[in-house]
Amino acid sequence: MAIAAHNHNDEHLLSTDNALDTLQNLVKDDLLAVNHAIVDRMQSRVTMIPQLAGHLISSGGKRLRPVLTLLCSRLCGYQGTRHIPLAACVEFIHTATLLHDDVVDDSSLRRGIESANAVWGNQASVLVGDFLFSRAFQIMVEDGSLRVLEILSAASAVIAEGEVQQLANSNDLRTTEQDCLAVITAKTAKLFAAACEVGAVVSNQPAKTAQSLATFGLNFGISFQLVDDTIDYAASDSAIGKQIGDDFREGKVTLPVLLAYVRGTQQDRSFWKRTIERQELREGDLACAISLMEKYEVLNDVRSRAREYASAACKGLDDFPDTHERQALSEAAKFCANRAY
Amino acid sequence: MAIAAHNHNDEHLLSTDNALDTLQNLVKDDLLAVNHAIVDRMQSRVTMIPQLAGHLISSGGKRLRPVLTLLCSRLCGYQGTRHIPLAACVEFIHTATLLHDDVVDDSSLRRGIESANAVWGNQASVLVGDFLFSRAFQIMVEDGSLRVLEILSAASAVIAEGEVQQLANSNDLRTTEQDCLAVITAKTAKLFAAACEVGAVVSNQPAKTAQSLATFGLNFGISFQLVDDTIDYAASDSAIGKQIGDDFREGKVTLPVLLAYVRGTQQDRSFWKRTIERQELREGDLACAISLMEKYEVLNDVRSRAREYASAACKGLDDFPDTHERQALSEAAKFCANRAY
Repeated sequence: MAIAAHNHNDEHLLSTDNALDTLQNLVKDDLLAVNHAIVDRMQSRVTMIPQLAGHLISSGGKRLRPVLTLLCSRLCGYQGTRHIPLAACVEFIHTATLLHDDVVDDSSLRRGIESANAVWGNQASVLVGDFLFSRAFQIMVEDGSLRVLEILSAASAVIAEGEVQQLANSNDLRTTEQDCLAVITAKTAKLFAAACEVGAVVSNQPAKTAQSLATFGLNFGISFQLVDDTIDYAASDSAIGKQIGDDFREGKVTLPVLLAYVRGTQQDRSFWKRTIERQELREGDLACAISLMEKYEVLNDVRSRAREYASAACKGLDDFPDTHERQALSEAAKFCANRAY
Repeated sequence: MAIAAHNHNDEHLLSTDNALDTLQNLVKDDLLAVNHAIVDRMQSRVTMIPQLAGHLISSGGKRLRPVLTLLCSRLCGYQGTRHIPLAACVEFIHTATLLHDDVVDDSSLRRGIESANAVWGNQASVLVGDFLFSRAFQIMVEDGSLRVLEILSAASAVIAEGEVQQLANSNDLRTTEQDCLAVITAKTAKLFAAACEVGAVVSNQPAKTAQSLATFGLNFGISFQLVDDTIDYAASDSAIGKQIGDDFREGKVTLPVLLAYVRGTQQDRSFWKRTIERQELREGDLACAISLMEKYEVLNDVRSRAREYASAACKGLDDFPDTHERQALSEAAKFCANRAY
C-alpha cells in the first residue's frame, strides 16, 4: 500500500529481498522489541491517537531509521536494552514528521492519496504528530541521557528548519544547488545521523566514534534523499503502486528540477517557469518534465551523486571492526543509492 | 490586534489596568529578560521562521504562562536565572500549540481571520510550530533538569491528547460534562500547572510544594478556559475587536453548548443538533444560540464554576507565605474568572 509522503519511499522497499532485509535480519529480535515498544507507547485513552498513528506506523515500513539505531548500537558492542525504546523514539519523530508533511494547504488538496490527513483531516494529523513527538521526548526522559535528548531535540529543530526552507524554496527557480543540498541534509539526513549517533551514545563510546557514526548517517541520509528526489520523476512502469510526480505538482525545487532548469535552453526554462514557478499545469507536463530530465541526463547525474555520498558513508565506517553489522550498514547505504523505487 | 485562536483570549486582556498587569509588574525585569530570550531563541537562518513565529509572539500577549513560571519561582524564593529560559520554553510550547490549533481542515476554511495560517498557509504554521516545540526542548536540555523535561514533555503529550479529544468530540452532543472538563484540563490547564510547577523545581522545593503549585496552576487553568468558552458566546458589544461564535461555527461541544442542550426542550435540542451536530448553519443561528444560553442561565452557571475553580486555586496557596507574589497570583486567578473578554 502506498502511504503518505512521496519523499519517504523507503516504505516501498519493504517486500523485496535486499540489503535492507539483511539489515533487518541482523537485529530481528531487537526490531520485534522496538515494534512492541512502538505499539505500546502510541497508546492513549484518546482512541483516535492509536488509530491514526497506527495507520501510518503499521503500514509496513522497514523502520530504516530505528534499525540504524539498533545496528549502530550493536556495531559498538552494546549489550543492554536502552537502544530499544530510543529506536522507538526515532521512529516516533519520523512518523510525526510524515504526519506533518502531509498536511495540505487549501491550494493543494488535489493529491488525492490515502494519507492520514485525507482520512482524518489536517487537524487530527497535526495533533497526533504532536502527541508522537511529545511521547518521543517522554521516552527519552525515561532513558535519562541528556546527550540523547540533546541530539534528538537538535535534529528535530533542524528537520523543521529544513522543511520550512523547502517550503520557502517552492516555486522558486533561483534556488541553488547548495540550497537543495542544505534542505536534503536538514529534512532527511539529520535524523539518519541522529539515529546512528544515539547508538554510539548508549554504548558509551568516545565522542570521536559517535561523530563517525553521525557522519555515516548524514552521508547515508543525503544519498537516500537524493535518490528519493529522482524517484518522483521515474518512468511510471518501474514500480508497482507507486505515485510519481507529486514533487512536480507541488512545485518543489528538487535537485533534478534545478539541474534540468540550469542545463535547459531558453524554451526549456520557460517550461520550468510555467510549471514549477507559476504552477500552470497542463496535460502531459509531467511526461515533458521527465523527458527533459532524460535529455540532460539529470536523473543519472543525481543518482551518481547519491552513490558518491553512499561511498563516503561506507568509507566513514573504515575504523570500525569488519563485522556483519558494519557490512550490513555499508550494503544498505549502497543498496539505497542504487534503488530504482 | 486580534490574533489567531479564539480560545486564547488572554491576548485581549493586555492593555487594561488589571490584576494581570500587577502580576506582570511584579516580575517586570524578569519578563523583559524572557522577551529577549524568546526573540533570541526563535531566530533561524530560515527567515520564514522568525517572521511567522514573531507574528504571533510579538502581537502583544501578556505571557500569562511564562509569567506564572517567573512568579512561582519568586514565590519559592528563587534567586537565580534558570527560570528565564524555562519561562521562554513555556511560551514556545504555548505558541506552537496556537500555531497548530489554527491549522484548518479543507472543510473549515471560512474563519477568515488574520491567523498565521491565513497569511503563510497551513504547512508553514505546522512546521514553525514544530520548530518552536523542538527549540523548547533544546532550551530545556541546556538547562539540564530531567525533572523539568519530564514535566513539560508530559504536559505536551497531554495537551495533544486534549486537542485530539476535543476534535473527536466535535459535532457530538453525546459528549458529557466530564468529557468537557477532561478536554479543558488537558488542553489548557495542564500547561498552566506545568508552568507553575517548573517554578518550584528550579527553586529546589520539595515535591509537596511543587505539587501545590501544580494544583494551583491546574485550577487556574480550568477556570481560565471555562471563562474562555463563555466568551465565545458573549454579546458582541462587550468588547472591541473581538470575534465571537468561532466555537459555534466549528461545532465545538463546549460546556455552554452542552448545558444549553441538556437543559433545552425538544425543540431547543433540534436546534443544537442541526447547528452543532449537522453544522447546517443559517442566518441568525448564533444569536439564537446565545439567547438559548441566556434563557437557561448557562453562561452564568459556567462563570460561577470558573469562580469556584479560581477559589480552589487561591486556597491552594494558603501554605505559602503571604507575600506580594502570592497575592498577585491569587488576584490574577480571581480576575481571570471574572473577566468578560
